[in-house]
Amino acid sequence: MTRIPVRLAGRKCLIAVGRGLLGRAGTLLAPLLSGRLVVCVSSAPVIRIAGSRFARSLVRARTPARWLTVPDGERAKTMGVLESLLRHMARVGVDRRSFVIAFGGGTVGDVAGLSAAMYARGIGMVQVPTTLVGQVDSAIGGKTAVDLPEGKNLVGAFHQPAAVICDPDALLTLPDRQYRAGLAEVVKYGVIASPSLFELLERSRAAVVAREPVLLERIVVTCARIKARVVSADERETTGLRTMLNFGHTLGHGLEAATGFGGMLHGEAVAIGMVAAARLSAKLGVCRRETPGRISALLSSFGLPVSLPRSANRSAVVAAMARDKKRAGHGLRVVLTPGMGGVRVRDGISPGQLIGTL
Amino acid sequence: MTRIPVRLAGRKCLIAVGRGLLGRAGTLLAPLLSGRLVVCVSSAPVIRIAGSRFARSLVRARTPARWLTVPDGERAKTMGVLESLLRHMARVGVDRRSFVIAFGGGTVGDVAGLSAAMYARGIGMVQVPTTLVGQVDSAIGGKTAVDLPEGKNLVGAFHQPAAVICDPDALLTLPDRQYRAGLAEVVKYGVIASPSLFELLERSRAAVVAREPVLLERIVVTCARIKARVVSADERETTGLRTMLNFGHTLGHGLEAATGFGGMLHGEAVAIGMVAAARLSAKLGVCRRETPGRISALLSSFGLPVSLPRSANRSAVVAAMARDKKRAGHGLRVVLTPGMGGVRVRDGISPGQLIGTL
Repeated sequence: MTRIPVRLAGRKCLIAVGRGLLGRAGTLLAPLLSGRLVVCVSSAPVIRIAGSRFARSLVRARTPARWLTVPDGERAKTMGVLESLLRHMARVGVDRRSFVIAFGGGTVGDVAGLSAAMYARGIGMVQVPTTLVGQVDSAIGGKTAVDLPEGKNLVGAFHQPAAVICDPDALLTLPDRQYRAGLAEVVKYGVIASPSLFELLERSRAAVVAREPVLLERIVVTCARIKARVVSADERETTGLRTMLNFGHTLGHGLEAATGFGGMLHGEAVAIGMVAAARLSAKLGVCRRETPGRISALLSSFGLPVSLPRSANRSAVVAAMARDKKRAGHGLRVVLTPGMGGVRVRDGISPGQLIGTL
Repeated sequence: MTRIPVRLAGRKCLIAVGRGLLGRAGTLLAPLLSGRLVVCVSSAPVIRIAGSRFARSLVRARTPARWLTVPDGERAKTMGVLESLLRHMARVGVDRRSFVIAFGGGTVGDVAGLSAAMYARGIGMVQVPTTLVGQVDSAIGGKTAVDLPEGKNLVGAFHQPAAVICDPDALLTLPDRQYRAGLAEVVKYGVIASPSLFELLERSRAAVVAREPVLLERIVVTCARIKARVVSADERETTGLRTMLNFGHTLGHGLEAATGFGGMLHGEAVAIGMVAAARLSAKLGVCRRETPGRISALLSSFGLPVSLPRSANRSAVVAAMARDKKRAGHGLRVVLTPGMGGVRVRDGISPGQLIGTL
C-alpha cells in the first residue's frame, strides 16, 4: 500500500493506494469511523460489482453503514438527487459527527461529496473511488458539484475528504468504455506534469489497454501524487496552479453540456478537448508542431475520440463554453501545452478559435 | 457610521452600521463591486419598501444590479427556491468574479448566501439586512442555510460576506411583529454577553418599542459587536464558543419545525426557548431563582410569547428537537444561563426535560 499525504489548511487528507484495499478498507478506516453513523452513497451497478467486498470489510471492522443509492452516471449530478440524498440522510439520523462515504465513480463522488459539504454545514467524508477517473482525479482535491441544465458543475463546494481509498483491482471489472475514458485523464497528467508518465504510456500501450495490474497500480500512484501535489499547493483554485488540471477541459465541458451531459463520457470529451488545446498551442507557437499529433496518437491507441463527433452541434458547444464558469471577463482562459511536462495559461481565447482547430 | 471589523481566517469582513446607509451603500460598496456583475436577491415586500433607495444608490455608483426575487419569509428557504436562484444566476451570466447581494431579512440572507456559497463553488457576497434579526444576528457570521421538511437549517454552508451594511433606519418601516421578533435576539445578547445591554433594554422598554432611532442604532452596534467578536473567535463553530449564540435555540428550532416553519417567527420561537432554557438553568441550580422571571418579563413587555402556544403539539416539538443537527451523541446540548453576561453549556439534556419547564 502506498500512502500519499495531502497537506491542506488545517486538515489532513490521506490517500491510500493498494491492490486489494477494498477488502481491508474497514480496518483502515476504523480509527476514523468507529462509533459514528456512516452513510455509504453508491449506485446500483457499483454495489453489484464491488459493494459486497467493501461492505463486508466495514462490518468486520464494526463500522456498518447505511447504504443510499443514486442513479448511475451523470444523471446522479442534479439538484433533485442532491435533495433526495440530504432528506434520506436526515431521516436515518445523520448528525454532525456522522460520516459520508462515496463509493463509486466520479459522479457518485461529486454528489455524495456535495451532500456531505452541505449537510449540517459540512460533515466528514471519505472517498472510495472505483473508477479510473475517480482514483486518479475526481476523488482527490475536494471539488464536489452537481450540474444545472445551464452548465456542468455550476453548483458545488470545496469539501476535502478525510481519506481517499484507491484499490486498482477494482478497475479490472470496469466496463471497457469507462476504463478508456479514465485513460484520458491519465494522459493529461503526462502532458501537464510528467514526460516520463507520457513515455511509459506510449511504451506500454498494449499492457495499459489490457489493464496489467502492476502497471495499473503504478499509474494510479503516479497520477494521485501529481494531483495531491497540485491540490496541496492550490487548494481552492486561487493561486492559479490548479488551473493546469483544466488542460482539455474548456472544450471538454462545453462538449458535454452541448450533448446534454451523458451523450459522452467526461474522459471522452476531455480527450477531444486536449487535442483542440494542443493544436491551438501549436498554432500559437507555444509548442512544437509534432506535439498535437503525439497526444492524439496516444489517445487514439486507447480507443478515445480525437475529433468532434458528427452529432455535436458546433454553435451549441460554443455557447456552452461561453457560459462556462471558468470564463474570466472577456474570452476564455485556456490551458495550453508547451510540450510534455508543463502548461501555459492564456486568457482571451474565443470559443470559435478553440473549436476551429478541430 | 460605525465600522466593526470581523477577523476571519484569510479574509476580511467589514460590518458598517449607520443611519441612512442604504442611500450611500453604492458609494461604500463601489471599490468592492465596480466592474463586476452584481445580482441582488430580495423579496417583493422588501423591494417595495426599501428597494428603490438602495437600487438608486447602486446605479449612482455605477454598479447596477440584476434583481432576483425569492418568496417572503421562511418559504424562501427551500431546496427548490435555491435551485431556481442558481439557475437564474446561470442564465444572467454570473461567473466567478460576480457578487451576490442579499437585500432583506434573515431568510433572504440565508438562501442568497447559500446560493453564493454554491455557485461556481463560491462567489463573493454582501449582506444588506433590512430586519432587526438580520442586522444583529443572521447577516453576520457567514452561516447560510435552507430547511428540509425533516428539519430547519439542515442544509447549508459557512460562507462569509465581504461586507455587511446595516441601516437602522430601515427598521422604522418593519412590520411590528417582525420588529418585535428581532428584539428576542437582542435580549439574547444581553443575557449571554452584556448585562449593561440587558439593563438598557429594561430601562428603555417604551423607547425600544417606539423604535427611537438613536437608541436603535446603539442597540444594533452593540449586538453586531458581540456577534462579530464571537464569530471572529469561532468561525466554524468548532471551539464551542459560538455555541453560546444558541441560547434559546434548541427548543426554538424544535418549535419552528413542529409548527411547520412559518406558523411562528424565528424570534418568537427563540423567546419561548429562552424562557425554557432560563427555567431549566434555575431548576438545575445554574442561575438564581429570579433570573427566568426577569428574562420572561422583558420579553413579555416587548409583546413576545413566553409560553407554548396552544396549537403546539408537545410530542411533535420533542421529536423535532431529537432530530436537530445540534444533537451530539445522546441527549441534547443546551445553552444555560448563570445570570446575565455569560453561559453554561450542558450535554445530555432530554427534550422532555427542556419542554417540561413550560
